[in-house]
Amino acid sequence: MGLIVQKYGGTSVAGLDKIKWVAGHVIRTREKGNDVLVVVSAMAGETDKLVKLSLQIMDPPDERELDVVTSSGEQVSSGLLAMSIKALGRDAISLQGHQVRIVTDNAHSKAKIVRIDAERIKKALAEGKIVVVAGFQGVDEEGNVTTLGRGGSDLTAVALAAALNADSCELYKDDVDGIYTSDPGIVPAARKLDRISYEEMLELASLGSKVLQARAVEFAMKFGVTLHVRPTAKPDTEGTWVVEEEEMTHLENILISGVSSDKNQAKITITQVPDSPGIAAKIFTPLSESGIIVDMIVQNVSIEGHTDMTFTVPRTDFKKSIILTEKVAKQLGAKKIISDDKIAKVSLVGVGMKTHSGVASRMFSTLAKEGINILMISTSEIKISCVVEEKYTELAVRALHDAFELGEKK
Amino acid sequence: MGLIVQKYGGTSVAGLDKIKWVAGHVIRTREKGNDVLVVVSAMAGETDKLVKLSLQIMDPPDERELDVVTSSGEQVSSGLLAMSIKALGRDAISLQGHQVRIVTDNAHSKAKIVRIDAERIKKALAEGKIVVVAGFQGVDEEGNVTTLGRGGSDLTAVALAAALNADSCELYKDDVDGIYTSDPGIVPAARKLDRISYEEMLELASLGSKVLQARAVEFAMKFGVTLHVRPTAKPDTEGTWVVEEEEMTHLENILISGVSSDKNQAKITITQVPDSPGIAAKIFTPLSESGIIVDMIVQNVSIEGHTDMTFTVPRTDFKKSIILTEKVAKQLGAKKIISDDKIAKVSLVGVGMKTHSGVASRMFSTLAKEGINILMISTSEIKISCVVEEKYTELAVRALHDAFELGEKK
Repeated sequence: MGLIVQKYGGTSVAGLDKIKWVAGHVIRTREKGNDVLVVVSAMAGETDKLVKLSLQIMDPPDERELDVVTSSGEQVSSGLLAMSIKALGRDAISLQGHQVRIVTDNAHSKAKIVRIDAERIKKALAEGKIVVVAGFQGVDEEGNVTTLGRGGSDLTAVALAAALNADSCELYKDDVDGIYTSDPGIVPAARKLDRISYEEMLELASLGSKVLQARAVEFAMKFGVTLHVRPTAKPDTEGTWVVEEEEMTHLENILISGVSSDKNQAKITITQVPDSPGIAAKIFTPLSESGIIVDMIVQNVSIEGHTDMTFTVPRTDFKKSIILTEKVAKQLGAKKIISDDKIAKVSLVGVGMKTHSGVASRMFSTLAKEGINILMISTSEIKISCVVEEKYTELAVRALHDAFELGEKK
Repeated sequence: MGLIVQKYGGTSVAGLDKIKWVAGHVIRTREKGNDVLVVVSAMAGETDKLVKLSLQIMDPPDERELDVVTSSGEQVSSGLLAMSIKALGRDAISLQGHQVRIVTDNAHSKAKIVRIDAERIKKALAEGKIVVVAGFQGVDEEGNVTTLGRGGSDLTAVALAAALNADSCELYKDDVDGIYTSDPGIVPAARKLDRISYEEMLELASLGSKVLQARAVEFAMKFGVTLHVRPTAKPDTEGTWVVEEEEMTHLENILISGVSSDKNQAKITITQVPDSPGIAAKIFTPLSESGIIVDMIVQNVSIEGHTDMTFTVPRTDFKKSIILTEKVAKQLGAKKIISDDKIAKVSLVGVGMKTHSGVASRMFSTLAKEGINILMISTSEIKISCVVEEKYTELAVRALHDAFELGEKK
């Protein structure tokens, strides 16, 4: 008899009929002889509604009180789901963050889990109960309510699976069947992966794939929690397993797992910066102090004591970044600032890259063949990203997907 | 510098504009040099909405989970109010039942407060914060969420006022200006009382007046908490003070404080019950075991070893009561059952009755003068109730209000 953690997102519990269906599915899992621990998000739309109310009072809202308000969504859905399970004749109990208890730091709205006291859950499981935990929420050491950030229920599920040494952690999704080689909306031939490694998933998540929260994947990788992304609508379908890299290469010999794109990108260049030690720190410290996450950075070779520095920031932080950078550029005596927010980042992800050469060159030549100019390049062990003009995004993704033969076998 | 507890009901926080107004009023109270502790109900309609959702899953709903679901309403309103106070530049903090902590027994949906750990509130007040406590909710010794029953936020406010030795407990109402001598909807001449004693208020509350929760009044009386019922819409109006009886008679020489009526009544008579010791217990035990509250009981004098027993029950429990009573009547060998649910109870309440004779006879003759037949009578130290035909309710109330000169002086 194993322990299975199941997590259901907001769209999977969006209405009473859906909640009742989930209750039935949880019970079926229980009846196969497993202990079941369920993590739920708020009913779809609830969190947005509560944030909107708060913003009408205070913008930005007080973070401590915002957490009090938004965490109520998961409280409701966890109670309703536990009730639905009981209505079907199985014993169940809902637990909130303060009851489990899931202890976090006090960074409201983006708290990090510090520890989990799993005794209460263990006791309830031992009593034969199905345990329903409210996702997204925790408490700090002083008992203040905290939340784990958008998609935080994924993290709740993974952290509980780790704390309880669960056999697997099933993440039910209402909108996707699993992890795909690319966005099926862009690449109709995109193929569902049976398996993907934590590292690849992490790169995809950080590239803007909304299927799993990046922090949840990181946590799973750190503690070796096997993730299983499954479609709520088709419970008999095998979704995608997220596993250790070793398990991957053992089973499949895949070079590239996916092609992704991210349009939330903008590019800023400072030209002819007098090159001296410490200029990078001077440029990027004000940005990081303002909470702006700089993604790619390219520095040209220095010519006559001057260099150009180009970097990308999220498009939503574009204006703020320009103001901050202009200030620094003046101080540094740089020539001028060139900026562009009509760009996109196209990336190839795959653990196979580590041991195969030629991936980068094939990527570049594929783009060249389509007449797509590469504006910036950045590489990591398992990822190559190219910044291109925004209008080429879909073309680039489809061309790469084809070139690396990621689609369904015809 | 004193401590004032203020409680705002659901209609007082029904929307963002109202919440913002409350925030301003709380701050004005703070600026008069008082520490302020605020208790809020859920935004009007929220609790009903959550109960309805739960009932669609399970009827009756699981009580533990229902408390988890319904308590979320106060969580939201407390967070939004604390945020609104902060938006106006004053420091504030919301606290939930599990944070205060308000410890109750585990009688879900009608829990009794066992103790209040007020340290966290005291600390926040000492830091200069306005404290906003979510009403209605508590936790049992094991940390399960509990609720205090309908109108429970009144009780939260009174209990906190007692625990913190507050100078007064202001109960803001959106629909009334204070406590009236009678329902102004029935008696246009009804007059607002400046003061009323706990005992009188308690009788009025138990007679169906919805202004204050009976348990909250009881608690206030027990711990000597001065209550102040005030209208939210007219914050400069003195509402009604609920005080010790001694303070009452000292200041005003009032015979009768109010006339009330209650239509949630039904009457059952068992005729010709063989009179023997223990028949009352045999009749009423099945009713109390089913949770039916019997109000008035009248037993006729025994004639030839037989007696008639008449009693009233809430109209909502009428059918269930008849079924239970018919069973018992058969066992006891009684002749038959007569029942009537077209009745109402009309009551006079006043501490002055204790020391004045003639109240009852004036009541009876007033009703007789209007041609109203009295079906049952019951008296207590400060209350006389008559059951009459339902159609006479308003006439009876107005006639009594006139006869005892309760209206505005003309």
